[in-house]
Amino acid sequence: MTILSDLTSLDALPGLVDTLPGADVAAAQAASARQDSLTKPPRALGRLEELAIFMAGWQGTPRPVIDRAQALVFAGNHGVCAQGVNPFPQEVTAQMVANFDAGGAAINQLCRASGADLSVIALDLDRPTADITEAPAMSADEVLDAIRRGAGAVDADAQVLVLGEMGIGNSTIAAALAHAVFGGAAADWVGRGTGVDDEGLTRKADVVARAVERHAGIRGAALLAALGGREQAAICGAVLQARALSIPVILDGFICTAATAPLFDADPRLLDHCLVGHASREPGHTRLLHEMGKAPILALDMALGEGSGAAVALGVLRAALECHNGMATFAEAGVAGG
Amino acid sequence: MTILSDLTSLDALPGLVDTLPGADVAAAQAASARQDSLTKPPRALGRLEELAIFMAGWQGTPRPVIDRAQALVFAGNHGVCAQGVNPFPQEVTAQMVANFDAGGAAINQLCRASGADLSVIALDLDRPTADITEAPAMSADEVLDAIRRGAGAVDADAQVLVLGEMGIGNSTIAAALAHAVFGGAAADWVGRGTGVDDEGLTRKADVVARAVERHAGIRGAALLAALGGREQAAICGAVLQARALSIPVILDGFICTAATAPLFDADPRLLDHCLVGHASREPGHTRLLHEMGKAPILALDMALGEGSGAAVALGVLRAALECHNGMATFAEAGVAGG
Repeated sequence: MTILSDLTSLDALPGLVDTLPGADVAAAQAASARQDSLTKPPRALGRLEELAIFMAGWQGTPRPVIDRAQALVFAGNHGVCAQGVNPFPQEVTAQMVANFDAGGAAINQLCRASGADLSVIALDLDRPTADITEAPAMSADEVLDAIRRGAGAVDADAQVLVLGEMGIGNSTIAAALAHAVFGGAAADWVGRGTGVDDEGLTRKADVVARAVERHAGIRGAALLAALGGREQAAICGAVLQARALSIPVILDGFICTAATAPLFDADPRLLDHCLVGHASREPGHTRLLHEMGKAPILALDMALGEGSGAAVALGVLRAALECHNGMATFAEAGVAGG
Repeated sequence: MTILSDLTSLDALPGLVDTLPGADVAAAQAASARQDSLTKPPRALGRLEELAIFMAGWQGTPRPVIDRAQALVFAGNHGVCAQGVNPFPQEVTAQMVANFDAGGAAINQLCRASGADLSVIALDLDRPTADITEAPAMSADEVLDAIRRGAGAVDADAQVLVLGEMGIGNSTIAAALAHAVFGGAAADWVGRGTGVDDEGLTRKADVVARAVERHAGIRGAALLAALGGREQAAICGAVLQARALSIPVILDGFICTAATAPLFDADPRLLDHCLVGHASREPGHTRLLHEMGKAPILALDMALGEGSGAAVALGVLRAALECHNGMATFAEAGVAGG
């Protein structure tokens, strides 16, 4: 917590990377050597090998494990809903938080299936951010508060962190953040979200274009104040706190990945400890992953949010570590050809 | 077991499909209606929804479950190894079977991770099939015997069946079966398998071309005798037995999928209850999946066999059913917009 509790200005974020731990190269190399000794042709486990080596580097041990996985879902509300970007009323955000708390949502089932402890953090749902077509979403102090709340929610004992979000209207926020950081046309970054029709899609693109134009010239972490929502800032806080604690992260889909785009813009290395769980059906996600140089673990045509794709990917990560730690070496098994 | 124990000729296989159960359309429709009632935007769980509906159809219930998952790995040896198609000696097949039995292979770890009961069935490893560039791999009686052994290994109480294989040289057999059924050039279907070099790759393509030419004109299940391999025939037997028992199947990668190509050639409907767990790195697999109209669940750049990709996919299938059975409906959760 030291690093983030000292953070008094968003301008200080890019410099953070030099004070944060990096991957343990020796541990990753030892894990890679172990993979080459296991009873399989070289690289036959493909992505599972890469994931085990990645985990070794960030956990700082040749034999990474997941005894404790944490999932955090941050929820927020957005003034941009005044622009008619979502067919659902904003009340659904709180209703879905109640559904999370009651155990009835997809993420509850997926966390049970993949063995993650879920916490849901509702961020001032009765106080939506400002309409980004008319004003900055938040003040810098509000952003810092949300960053600290995200950071404070991270369990220091977790060995991997799954991140997700909920917020009616936040696929519009995600498109605006991605458009501001990576350019292109607003229409490149908008999709149907929870299910807008063709007319709604056109309206969303127009809203995103106007919002980004309204805040033109703002870059890096300051974009969280201009365009962001509280759950976006909290995700950034959790990402930074996980990094400070050397906890690898699994980001979810379009909205969760786009939430970290301001960090990427500040310094791409701030996301080096982050995997992306899946490629969302939301069309902007594939473009975003390309821009950010992240290869998703899964592509299951999902577009739900809540951390759902990241939670499914946690199961793949567990499978990777089971192989890494449990397989016999050629020497142990007496198999020729190792 | 009735259907397959009555099978006295490979010629009878195509007709089998009319005596085998199909999917329960009413159960699948009820599962689809349930998905539309759950607390998420329509189709937001993408492939997870499709998988739940698929399982409902084949298990014949709107609420499919996996309390018991079986994994079967069939192992065989191949006379075609005389053509130098694999850098590993054939002894490795038996050594890897011993590794499976000792719990040291990838599939052991992956079955533990995904909750599948693994059985490994070694098929006359000391009696390789004939070199398919010179003769039929097996007699029809040998094929029928392997089909019955595969069928007999299926647990009637399983609710899903994961299939895999092990056999030095069997990526060449797979390429030959795929080339014979789907045409193209031999080079389209060969890959590096356990790790041949460029020269080995050229040799493999030549071997496949000569084998398929040697047995030109043979179609359908008779291809198992011409080009087969005992583990290929056993996989076909397990697929048919699972169908007779209305057990959905997860096929593994290139070799396992290609093993079923003779059934596809006899009648594509024989594989309607089969999912494919992953797209292998082996280049022929993507082409094969396209020809067979199967969309893989995962694409993790794996190329191991053993049922490894199918076992990882079982975890995704479990996640799909957890959502399907555990999520609240809009009405139950009091969420607007359902």
